[in-house]
Amino acid sequence: MDDAVLVRATAAAAAMVRSTLAERAAWLRAVADALDARTADLVAVADRETHLGEGRLTGEVARTTGQLRLFADVVLEGSYLEATIDQAAPTAAPPRPDLRRMLRPIGPVAVFSASNFPFAFSVAGGDTASALAVGCPVVVKAHPGHPELSRLTAEIVTGALATAGAPTGAFALVEGYEDGIALVGHPAVMAVAFTGSVAGGRALHDLAAARPAPIPFYGELGSVNPVVVTGGADAARGASLAAGLAASFTLGTGQFCTKPGVVFVPEGSAFERALAAVDLPAAGAMLTDSIARGFASGVDRLLAVPGVELVSGSADGPLVVAAPLDALEAHAEELLAEVFGPVTVLVRYGSDERLLASLDKLEGSLTATLHAEESDATAELVERLETVAGRLLFAGWPTGVAVTWSQHHGGPWPSTTSQFTSVGATAVRRFLRPIAYQDAPDAALPPALRDGNPLGIPRRVDGVLGQV
Amino acid sequence: MDDAVLVRATAAAAAMVRSTLAERAAWLRAVADALDARTADLVAVADRETHLGEGRLTGEVARTTGQLRLFADVVLEGSYLEATIDQAAPTAAPPRPDLRRMLRPIGPVAVFSASNFPFAFSVAGGDTASALAVGCPVVVKAHPGHPELSRLTAEIVTGALATAGAPTGAFALVEGYEDGIALVGHPAVMAVAFTGSVAGGRALHDLAAARPAPIPFYGELGSVNPVVVTGGADAARGASLAAGLAASFTLGTGQFCTKPGVVFVPEGSAFERALAAVDLPAAGAMLTDSIARGFASGVDRLLAVPGVELVSGSADGPLVVAAPLDALEAHAEELLAEVFGPVTVLVRYGSDERLLASLDKLEGSLTATLHAEESDATAELVERLETVAGRLLFAGWPTGVAVTWSQHHGGPWPSTTSQFTSVGATAVRRFLRPIAYQDAPDAALPPALRDGNPLGIPRRVDGVLGQV
Repeated sequence: MDDAVLVRATAAAAAMVRSTLAERAAWLRAVADALDARTADLVAVADRETHLGEGRLTGEVARTTGQLRLFADVVLEGSYLEATIDQAAPTAAPPRPDLRRMLRPIGPVAVFSASNFPFAFSVAGGDTASALAVGCPVVVKAHPGHPELSRLTAEIVTGALATAGAPTGAFALVEGYEDGIALVGHPAVMAVAFTGSVAGGRALHDLAAARPAPIPFYGELGSVNPVVVTGGADAARGASLAAGLAASFTLGTGQFCTKPGVVFVPEGSAFERALAAVDLPAAGAMLTDSIARGFASGVDRLLAVPGVELVSGSADGPLVVAAPLDALEAHAEELLAEVFGPVTVLVRYGSDERLLASLDKLEGSLTATLHAEESDATAELVERLETVAGRLLFAGWPTGVAVTWSQHHGGPWPSTTSQFTSVGATAVRRFLRPIAYQDAPDAALPPALRDGNPLGIPRRVDGVLGQV
Repeated sequence: MDDAVLVRATAAAAAMVRSTLAERAAWLRAVADALDARTADLVAVADRETHLGEGRLTGEVARTTGQLRLFADVVLEGSYLEATIDQAAPTAAPPRPDLRRMLRPIGPVAVFSASNFPFAFSVAGGDTASALAVGCPVVVKAHPGHPELSRLTAEIVTGALATAGAPTGAFALVEGYEDGIALVGHPAVMAVAFTGSVAGGRALHDLAAARPAPIPFYGELGSVNPVVVTGGADAARGASLAAGLAASFTLGTGQFCTKPGVVFVPEGSAFERALAAVDLPAAGAMLTDSIARGFASGVDRLLAVPGVELVSGSADGPLVVAAPLDALEAHAEELLAEVFGPVTVLVRYGSDERLLASLDKLEGSLTATLHAEESDATAELVERLETVAGRLLFAGWPTGVAVTWSQHHGGPWPSTTSQFTSVGATAVRRFLRPIAYQDAPDAALPPALRDGNPLGIPRRVDGVLGQV
């Protein structure tokens, strides 16, 4: 990697620490406007490289620019700074100094973009937006699945940032395996954000942890996104739930980190009968050859498990398979592993007790979905699912991930490596570190902490949260 | 290690998730009251094992129980939950579900206690208090420097928690090197908090990162706590600053992680002249033999650096040494390394430009202190020090660490491993993970997220922070 990239990022970091909330919000909005204006060009290149289709890709550009604008709002609102002031208490025992704390940018961030969301989790995606939002320079490692799109997006981002007055070095793109490794090891890089496979993420996590000065690695890796359908829900609406699942697990040719990969259904369910009769969409082209190969071998492994039956579709995908709960005893690893692509596994349970026990075999997931009737006793099920996932759904399907203040896109290992999200307002917390100022003259303080609250942001003063 | 410890902790975790804010606040206050009631016994045992003296130890018990009570207040106030609600927007494009996010306990926490604060950073210290506060069971690894005190404290904590109605397994104590290693590797342990040496912390950090399912390791390791005295400050009050430094670096026989270890002073300073004439206190007994040996060899290494002179005291400590800025060029590693114990290094600078450049040689610290006059131009100095430390002082000395809402006790590696603090209200964030609930029936939600805000806590609704 050209070391100049990180020399420029380091210089930009020093300038960005001093940037105002309004300046950074304007940078993000300028990037969003520039991407919106080039939607047609971007979608054409993306469709050629990813085969995801114009409709989906056009929607994803809008989602991506909406995300940039949400982070602009988050920055302007200002409570992400966690500004906290404890005034001096000279007569307390022991006497307390004036102490003021806020969050500040951590420094240059390396972003590894994903293959399956060439806009929303790629060059100008959520990791980039949330890092820039709080004043961290970003160096993106392009995904090799869409190199041309990565370059075009980077060109638009770079141009928009320059026009909006962001420092040179606030954003850069690198390509290739070696440059990715070099980024994670570079002493100027202060955090890594990654969306991708468990194997790739684990390797980079281990590199980040092994540095002479370790840095945080925020990975979004693998997830099976379990679904539980109760007997009550099956009786009330098994067929419509089946239609919902069929639409969800085939979306984007099943290439979503939130694809429902395993569904616990009662034995002899209307849900399964409806799935056996459902019309699945034709197999779409997958993102890359290696993803297609991974899907084929994953399906082979599933079909080789004793007791697994094909419910619908074919081995080329999309397909639904089913297995009795007994099969989980000996083959949990195969049945509960993520297979990236359009396949989902029904696990048929006989009793609620055995269902509950089997949930302990699940690894961490981004999401868990519970389809139940209000009359069902679900407290224990909810408690189990809370230990497994970061987002619990009680209606609908997990493939939609709203970009909002309250979103959480994270969960226990291996779905993510951290207690943070890569989607939604709080994604910015990954790229911040606290600083406390003790007995500082007002002029030496950042504006967020000065007397009189010149930024008008929410602050906590002497323990009380307010706008003072 | 007896596996039953973590079986009980795991069972307790499930119960503690459902505990109320008021219940947990009552547990913490019960522990504080029980420790206060036994202060005399605790101090007697502590003094025998640590030699820190009755006065200091009595104050530390009060600090520790005050800390428990602060976390009770933090829990009752409730904004630590980050409760966030986005109401459904069915007509938005794309339609948005009802989504509600909050922070939940991460699960059992392993706490490695420190030698130098046998109360405040030990069995019932800040790590234990902040984990219990948010509903995480705690297993403390006792420090071998004060085993009897650890057992007595654990007995008091266990009794108080039981009387207050906390679940069995909410707290346990283990001892010995092997049990410590076993804790970090145990699949039931969800986070590790550690205060101690860089070498020990690094080893445990690496273990936590290498687990099949990695967990967060929150380490507070080594810190030199640089101080800068400007020419202006030296001229105005060099002698009184020197007296302040002498008191600070000898406090607790220099065995503070916030001890000022290196002081940049102008050449020919009144500050250094005053230190040469100062009466340093007599050498106190150190905490353990191994700390005493580490101090002796650290002092030997310092005195062997070409250009280093003894300013005051003797090699047995306390002592002040000095070196010209030139010595930093060849010997930064020796001059800027933490030596745990009563020694501080003056580095004499000739020009502000060379001072600024030399600050780049500093590793991360918990604190940095700037003694300047209001008329001094300090903007660049402040910017450099912000990149080095987590707390910046503009008056006083870093050895005092107020336990408040705004405290930050953390900094770049190797002072800590994380973007979190181990002192102050926000220490609780280390032991929390977010969960988002999508389209949940009100009864399935935790009380913090239910309609009508039954807990009366600060929440963000549709992006607006308030009490609704």
